[in-house]
Amino acid sequence: MEQIKLSNEVSISRLVHGVWRMTEWNMQPKDTVQLVEQCLELGIDTFDHADIYGDYQCEKMFGKAMELAPELNDKIKIVTKCGIQLVSQKRPKNYIKHYDTSFEHIVWSAENSLKMLKRSNVDVLLIHRPDPYINPEEVAKAFNKLKEEGKVKAFGVSNFLPAQFKALQAHLDFPLVTNQIEVSVAAHQEFENGNIDFCQENGLRPMAWSPLAGGAIFTAQTHRFITLKNVLHRISDHMGVPIDQVMYAWLLQHPVGLIPVVGSGKIKRIKSAVAALDVKLSRQQWFDIWVASRGEGVA
Amino acid sequence: MEQIKLSNEVSISRLVHGVWRMTEWNMQPKDTVQLVEQCLELGIDTFDHADIYGDYQCEKMFGKAMELAPELNDKIKIVTKCGIQLVSQKRPKNYIKHYDTSFEHIVWSAENSLKMLKRSNVDVLLIHRPDPYINPEEVAKAFNKLKEEGKVKAFGVSNFLPAQFKALQAHLDFPLVTNQIEVSVAAHQEFENGNIDFCQENGLRPMAWSPLAGGAIFTAQTHRFITLKNVLHRISDHMGVPIDQVMYAWLLQHPVGLIPVVGSGKIKRIKSAVAALDVKLSRQQWFDIWVASRGEGVA
Amino acid sequence: MEQIKLSNEVSISRLVHGVWRMTEWNMQPKDTVQLVEQCLELGIDTFDHADIYGDYQCEKMFGKAMELAPELNDKIKIVTKCGIQLVSQKRPKNYIKHYDTSFEHIVWSAENSLKMLKRSNVDVLLIHRPDPYINPEEVAKAFNKLKEEGKVKAFGVSNFLPAQFKALQAHLDFPLVTNQIEVSVAAHQEFENGNIDFCQENGLRPMAWSPLAGGAIFTAQTHRFITLKNVLHRISDHMGVPIDQVMYAWLLQHPVGLIPVVGSGKIKRIKSAVAALDVKLSRQQWFDIWVASRGEGVA
Repeated sequence: MEQIKLSNEVSISRLVHGVWRMTEWNMQPKDTVQLVEQCLELGIDTFDHADIYGDYQCEKMFGKAMELAPELNDKIKIVTKCGIQLVSQKRPKNYIKHYDTSFEHIVWSAENSLKMLKRSNVDVLLIHRPDPYINPEEVAKAFNKLKEEGKVKAFGVSNFLPAQFKALQAHLDFPLVTNQIEVSVAAHQEFENGNIDFCQENGLRPMAWSPLAGGAIFTAQTHRFITLKNVLHRISDHMGVPIDQVMYAWLLQHPVGLIPVVGSGKIKRIKSAVAALDVKLSRQQWFDIWVASRGEGVA
Repeated sequence: MEQIKLSNEVSISRLVHGVWRMTEWNMQPKDTVQLVEQCLELGIDTFDHADIYGDYQCEKMFGKAMELAPELNDKIKIVTKCGIQLVSQKRPKNYIKHYDTSFEHIVWSAENSLKMLKRSNVDVLLIHRPDPYINPEEVAKAFNKLKEEGKVKAFGVSNFLPAQFKALQAHLDFPLVTNQIEVSVAAHQEFENGNIDFCQENGLRPMAWSPLAGGAIFTAQTHRFITLKNVLHRISDHMGVPIDQVMYAWLLQHPVGLIPVVGSGKIKRIKSAVAALDVKLSRQQWFDIWVASRGEGVA
Repeated sequence: MEQIKLSNEVSISRLVHGVWRMTEWNMQPKDTVQLVEQCLELGIDTFDHADIYGDYQCEKMFGKAMELAPELNDKIKIVTKCGIQLVSQKRPKNYIKHYDTSFEHIVWSAENSLKMLKRSNVDVLLIHRPDPYINPEEVAKAFNKLKEEGKVKAFGVSNFLPAQFKALQAHLDFPLVTNQIEVSVAAHQEFENGNIDFCQENGLRPMAWSPLAGGAIFTAQTHRFITLKNVLHRISDHMGVPIDQVMYAWLLQHPVGLIPVVGSGKIKRIKSAVAALDVKLSRQQWFDIWVASRGEGVA
């Protein structure tokens, strides 16, 4: 599988595995080790975390598994995130969900992620959400410290708009390497809020979270989603490939070079995502989905 | 009439003639020749085309006329466009209206325009609509080839937002020379989406399509358009000039330097547009129209 | 009180006094002198005007007071504005409220402000509103003339969006020093339209007008404002400081460095604003207000 060079220090696989829902997968540590090994065999060497996933438990679960097979730590790359403060028994001081991008919290959170993950470093640390109370100079100071100490190799953001990206970038000595945004056949807002354009302007590779729309297309009963589902089924039938591969292919072949975060604990589903790398939609098929997704034809 | 320098290679007249509706004008080739000659006498030497106008027929009709008077080809400038794929008997492979800004399509479409127009080059080629599936590197490759081969002198876009403009510009070795946008007393969105600001920031001269709002003001029955029509009539009466000249003057005197595309086949209407170059609205008259158009006073 | 350096020529106090409603304060010139002296004692040395405040009367009233104590003129800094043309008995030629950012009007208006204020210069001149009919080159010419003649030390804007700011800045030889925008616990749009981000990107210090929301929170009966008022009261009670200080603190401690324009004629209220410089909200308190203001939790 292709490696995507995000910076001189960091390359990640064309598909990334996401552990967002790991706590729902009922896995023992040895099962997680097996999943990681199977991903590696497929060429997926990058795992997407966040401090808050699984109510602050996913990094810890993953780290416990890695203790069983510590040699894997040198073969995998880790993306993790910080900046959201949940109301949680794990964070008893929090009485309102908020963001914290202070120097102290970023450093503490990154170091805590290393502790949970049982690693000496992570490859990429993302600010999870744009913080209306952000102090870009403080974030820069925290990033510099973590980089100098070898704890984080590269930095990025998630769910930022271009103006927010530029405000932070202006205070950094090195380029942010990605913006992890929500993109799927059901979520086209990033094409319209300037983020995809901004990535293309600046040669930035976005990651795509919820690339299958969390299954919403298959359960929702709106006119838009029913139409979209029908178009996807038609293309799936026509090409003889499963519908999830059509959805991944729609993302994978976009020229901006979206890196989907595959959020499944089932190796069968992950293999299907990998197979989607070989599915090529025609331009008209791509637009057929685009038009159904937006609910109106192109102008 | 003033010439507007778009680049070192291309200047166009302050008013441009647009053939969008040419197929509705019931003109014989000799009539078209006469119209072109009359435009040239008025100083209008630039003609705005697109591959798709008249269901892919306008360029061909225009080219046939030019065969009757080939010497005119050296006196006129041509703007044309590419990138929209219509569902049309002329394009039997298209089953859904879509955009195509691939290297292959841009080159093929531009070369086909030359064939239809019976010309060896056009002055400006525009990407007709922002393409959500654009690959700016491919567009750059196509533009470079067409420029090097002398087939297109300069390039621009149409209906792009600033973020889309910047994404494409970042991949080009030469500046895009214009953005052809919809602006009229009835269509003020470009003042509010950042496009006029962006043109002023970058010294870019926008072209204005549908500068008379396609007559909508005179047929629509909305409160906003009735109010706007009344304001236009009041100013028209006060100044003793026809209402279309008030509408053109409102565009022509804006400091951004809008270049209206005059889309009429009737020389009388074209002469009226030219006469509007001498109409000067006061600042309060300009705002009177602005306020009526937006339906609310300034803050 | 801290001085904020806006340019090599101009520094202003961390809090600015605003005379917007001066005509409602029923002050004699000697009362105004006293208010200015009391502000200076508190460290507030900057007074925010506009040509139009009080239907073109505030500058004049202020100037008359300063004639009683001309020595104060060297101790205070003046921000004033131009560019709005009101329908007013004072401006009999105006039949529609409009903007005028022509060379002639900017120069005339600034010189007229000096005449009204009985001063030889002002520290900062702002374009009061973004003008859809702006000619940035003309504005630049006017700014250059006023600067060269020593009549205005620095220039800025008010209520501009980033695209509008950049369009003007591109034509100036010196940086605009501020954007005076509406920000308060009840007016969070500037966090969402890119302006706060743009200021952080460019190290620009915004001024905040209507920092107490003009009292709207205390009179309006909307669900959002009732919720917001309750949160403010809760925090006020918890911290043992008046509610207006909570509202000022929310602005003052934001990392972008907002400079509130304190628009009261009562020294007691002004002193309370100054006291807010010592109030420190926790990050969760800041978000508690943010969430109540927006009517939804953070994502």
